[in-house]
Amino acid sequence: MPYVNVKVTRNGVTREIKQKIIADITDSLVKHLDKKPEHIHIVIDEIDEDNWGFAGELTTDYRKRT
Amino acid sequence: MPYVNVKVTRNGVTREIKQKIIADITDSLVKHLDKKPEHIHIVIDEIDEDNWGFAGELTTDYRKRT
Amino acid sequence: MPYVNVKVTRNGVTREIKQKIIADITDSLVKHLDKKPEHIHIVIDEIDEDNWGFAGELTTDYRKRT
Amino acid sequence: MPYVNVKVTRNGVTREIKQKIIADITDSLVKHLDKKPEHIHIVIDEIDEDNWGFAGELTTDYRKRT
Amino acid sequence: MPYVNVKVTRNGVTREIKQKIIADITDSLVKHLDKKPEHIHIVIDEIDEDNWGFAGELTTDYRKRT
Amino acid sequence: MPYVNVKVTRNGVTREIKQKIIADITDSLVKHLDKKPEHIHIVIDEIDEDNWGFAGELTTDYRKRT
Repeated sequence: MPYVNVKVTRNGVTREIKQKIIADITDSLVKHLDKKPEHIHIVIDEIDEDNWGFAGELTTDYRKRT
Repeated sequence: MPYVNVKVTRNGVTREIKQKIIADITDSLVKHLDKKPEHIHIVIDEIDEDNWGFAGELTTDYRKRT
Repeated sequence: MPYVNVKVTRNGVTREIKQKIIADITDSLVKHLDKKPEHIHIVIDEIDEDNWGFAGELTTDYRKRT
Repeated sequence: MPYVNVKVTRNGVTREIKQKIIADITDSLVKHLDKKPEHIHIVIDEIDEDNWGFAGELTTDYRKRT
Repeated sequence: MPYVNVKVTRNGVTREIKQKIIADITDSLVKHLDKKPEHIHIVIDEIDEDNWGFAGELTTDYRKRT
Repeated sequence: MPYVNVKVTRNGVTREIKQKIIADITDSLVKHLDKKPEHIHIVIDEIDEDNWGFAGELTTDYRKRT
């Protein structure tokens, strides 16, 4: 009975991309753990880059520098 | 010192419903675990149906089919 | 399609208590949000008191003082 | 900069299975979101069946009945 | 390889405050656990006060009373 | 009313280190967000290196190679 939470920064995550990521993760859990698809829930959280800290700074600041 | 996170799809979750769910969960933890109400925090995350994967597809796609 | 995560300190959380908390939370979500029980997953994490910080100190230290 | 948390019940999740699930999820995020592998962190939580509630009961009770 | 999730109520959490919190938490993990900054990811979730339950009621109701 | 979850790999995280990390994070939230310490809960999850995926492989495999 898996539950998966995916956190990504919010840029360019289209509906089609979400469909593919959810299909891929579900397939992987069905294949390797023999889980039933209807027991697999996946929540995708899209996070503003100002709310994601990486290497000690906001992702927005990090991207400006690099 | 419980912390509870409730994730639900975002449709029809009114303020009154949130009040009732928070009261019910708090009551249950006070009753069965003898916790103090002021040590109980509950966060409700309302998730867009396009961000909730179920049985390998987006909940929006699943609901259209069923 | 709710998912609930309950975090509590690990002391005296018996199997019977887990059954009651899971039944209570499921009932609440079924009643107020009209969810199907088989779409409700609840994970209980029991946390060592040395790993739970409260008011700036470990719960074990806090309990000794109060 | 994705972070993924996978929660599964603790039974038969070998090291090899973890390697495959982590490779699959990483590949999916690299392919569809163009993420760098070294920015992808995945945490697998193995949950005792007595701590996973499904359809209003403990998974251990549910499995006994079905 | 730490991952940190900070949940706060959404009021007055400016960009500057986020920068400071992320810097502080990163510094603490680097100093005490000898982690590399580029392995530390921190996600800040700002929660509506209507979605945060405290002591059995919504934070908005609690603040009105106190 | 902040809640913080820190996930780190399980190696060398002593009780003293936990005390310092919890004190640091609490201080930061009190200072920058004017929160009351008794409203701040912090949970530290120590994760086995076999359960933490980084850059597409288990942390145990990654460390062997690097």
